[in-house]
Amino acid sequence: MANGRPARPVDGPDSPNSVGWVTPRHIRLASREAPFPLEAGTSLPEVEVEYETYGELSAGRDNAVLVTHALSGDAHAAGWDRSAGVKTVSGRFKARRDGFTPPRGYRHKKPGWWDTMIGPGKPIDTRRFFVVCANILGSCYGTTGPASLNPGTGAPYGLSFPVVMVEDWVRLQALLLDSLGIDRLYAVVGGSLGGQQALEWALRFPERVAKAIILAASPKLSAQGVAFNAVARYFITNDPNFSRGDYYRNAPPEHGLAAARMLAHITYLSNEGMDSKFGRRLQNRNKPGYGFDEEFEVESYLNHQGRSFVERFDANSYLYILRAMDYYDAAERWGRGDLVAACERLQSEILVASFSSDWLYTPDGCQQLVHAICRSGRAVTYADIPSQYGHDAFLVETERVGKLLSGALKRAKPETGGTPA
Amino acid sequence: MANGRPARPVDGPDSPNSVGWVTPRHIRLASREAPFPLEAGTSLPEVEVEYETYGELSAGRDNAVLVTHALSGDAHAAGWDRSAGVKTVSGRFKARRDGFTPPRGYRHKKPGWWDTMIGPGKPIDTRRFFVVCANILGSCYGTTGPASLNPGTGAPYGLSFPVVMVEDWVRLQALLLDSLGIDRLYAVVGGSLGGQQALEWALRFPERVAKAIILAASPKLSAQGVAFNAVARYFITNDPNFSRGDYYRNAPPEHGLAAARMLAHITYLSNEGMDSKFGRRLQNRNKPGYGFDEEFEVESYLNHQGRSFVERFDANSYLYILRAMDYYDAAERWGRGDLVAACERLQSEILVASFSSDWLYTPDGCQQLVHAICRSGRAVTYADIPSQYGHDAFLVETERVGKLLSGALKRAKPETGGTPA
Repeated sequence: MANGRPARPVDGPDSPNSVGWVTPRHIRLASREAPFPLEAGTSLPEVEVEYETYGELSAGRDNAVLVTHALSGDAHAAGWDRSAGVKTVSGRFKARRDGFTPPRGYRHKKPGWWDTMIGPGKPIDTRRFFVVCANILGSCYGTTGPASLNPGTGAPYGLSFPVVMVEDWVRLQALLLDSLGIDRLYAVVGGSLGGQQALEWALRFPERVAKAIILAASPKLSAQGVAFNAVARYFITNDPNFSRGDYYRNAPPEHGLAAARMLAHITYLSNEGMDSKFGRRLQNRNKPGYGFDEEFEVESYLNHQGRSFVERFDANSYLYILRAMDYYDAAERWGRGDLVAACERLQSEILVASFSSDWLYTPDGCQQLVHAICRSGRAVTYADIPSQYGHDAFLVETERVGKLLSGALKRAKPETGGTPA
Repeated sequence: MANGRPARPVDGPDSPNSVGWVTPRHIRLASREAPFPLEAGTSLPEVEVEYETYGELSAGRDNAVLVTHALSGDAHAAGWDRSAGVKTVSGRFKARRDGFTPPRGYRHKKPGWWDTMIGPGKPIDTRRFFVVCANILGSCYGTTGPASLNPGTGAPYGLSFPVVMVEDWVRLQALLLDSLGIDRLYAVVGGSLGGQQALEWALRFPERVAKAIILAASPKLSAQGVAFNAVARYFITNDPNFSRGDYYRNAPPEHGLAAARMLAHITYLSNEGMDSKFGRRLQNRNKPGYGFDEEFEVESYLNHQGRSFVERFDANSYLYILRAMDYYDAAERWGRGDLVAACERLQSEILVASFSSDWLYTPDGCQQLVHAICRSGRAVTYADIPSQYGHDAFLVETERVGKLLSGALKRAKPETGGTPA
């Protein structure tokens, strides 16, 4: 969900622990003759996917790890992107003229979003694994989305883009793996909305996944989560620049998107974390200003988050991905509402981790999944990691998450009964 | 904070348990010659206060109970308002032409916001107590606020209205009581922002308060609370109709205010309460619509809350009252940051109640106050009421809150060591 950057020093592109310079790739996975069918009943005649890979696929094709990204993430999970990309101009998200070029400028000079976990000698060790990360359908980072050109009209889709869902993302990832000659994943790993994709992988393609590692993700979003998303969409769609999603030639709905992102950031941090990070400290330490300008540090933080997000994300994509969050419900999809029945499909080794202060995908929500897996007679490893970083913890608690991933990705020993790679 | 309506049947105006028909009163408490000084350093030359009273002041003037209201509340705490008021026209908040007439239309056919607690035979028993409730400074319900006419310009204040704080509200209430000939309160009672007023009463005027009953209120707002308020203000001030607060002759910033209120409602309910009230139920039970229209029941609920709020509340007032929420910090104000030192001022009997699932003014926050009072050597009665209604519980848990109030308002018996009325 969050796209927080690690607090600890990062490995430069020339570091032996970095995957170094990477270039995103693109693949077309649908056509008029073979459109991509969508969960909601419609289909897309053209689907291009942006993805990156790190490491080498083994001769046996048995060392692939799929990393799935969260709301505002992208395919650039590790290393340093040297592609020119399309720089944002005057701080605004620009429509892609050819329908597929992502606003990649923002990510220059930054390592991939999970560079702390992926690389030589890192928990997802690229000396051993072939790692794949693909941008999700509906996003604005190189995979087809609402800013892409609708081949039927030659104009960006905007709100004529169909509703997409977690299930669609996973089926599209499966097509991508097909094209890469990967039948079976050694592991699928993701956090937040990426964790829901990992779960959906294990449910939809049980025979294609040896291990599924699900971080900070519940089998469904709570009513509170749906409510936050509804408010976020309200901000965006009521921004006068929104123009029913048809804003690509004009000023985008920046205030609406910034507001939505500010709100989201509150849900990514915990109450205790915010108290410890900001407390009630004033911007001007000496004296309150008694007005409506930025007075408390936390206000300044949120305003900054809102401002910087509008430079790198498309408001329509945000709407579509929030809606996908709303709709995902593993129990409904695979067990007619019964999560235990759904879990009877599972054949993979499952690791679930929650974070103690996460109130978006709560430990309780994660434990519902864990309990259902247990009741279905399957094995599951579960950790609730103590952290004050809230939902962001899955990105910020690098030490603990790293150890968890390292352990889970070890080749299973016979006595553990795990699935051998 | 919230202004939820009780779920149980209400007493009609003719019921023996109702205070019946009431008419709000107005009093002018400042003038050019004697302006009202404000905590932020400025002053107001004209201050009118709208208030209601229920019951009779005793000959000894020792039976007064001040009820303090929350964010969107008003002076109309009990009974039925038969004054004509100013009806809202075409669903929009209208500026008050004479500076002081509240948009009272909305409250016709509704009992006062705490009618469940105030009346003959009710927990705050009007056969015994003389109950006073006054609208707070900066609000839009009859007390001077940003929609009032600035006597210097003849136009509504808008954002030229000075920042007001909890401390100002309490000092103004004290002036009102002076004018009513009430030196000492038998009790001050309030929840949420009203609870902070009750606390401020006990700290500022220890000798004027026998009992202070503080519900669902901490001595300060958390960083998370400040953050939510910042986002709410962002929506309002970035609504293009906001016009820097000068919108009274034009369309008001309805989308901004509606969005702010939608967000607030999420913070008034608990996660568990929303799951139990709405879950993930769809508006159309049969089939999802797969689009951006109201799909989940919780979306419809929030949209309704947003829409109805803009008909009864002024966006500028909302900004000012949120800012007052942000600024209040009892420890800073009375103990230079040390809450225990602040509590050494207390002379009243104190009752604090929190609600287990309240995550806006959390049990933890309330307990900070309780612990500080204990450490200061004062007595305090504390209850954490189990409830799934979140912050709204102080209005919704009528049975439990009623019993608590009844008990706390009993005349102290010698053996309890309480303060006699």
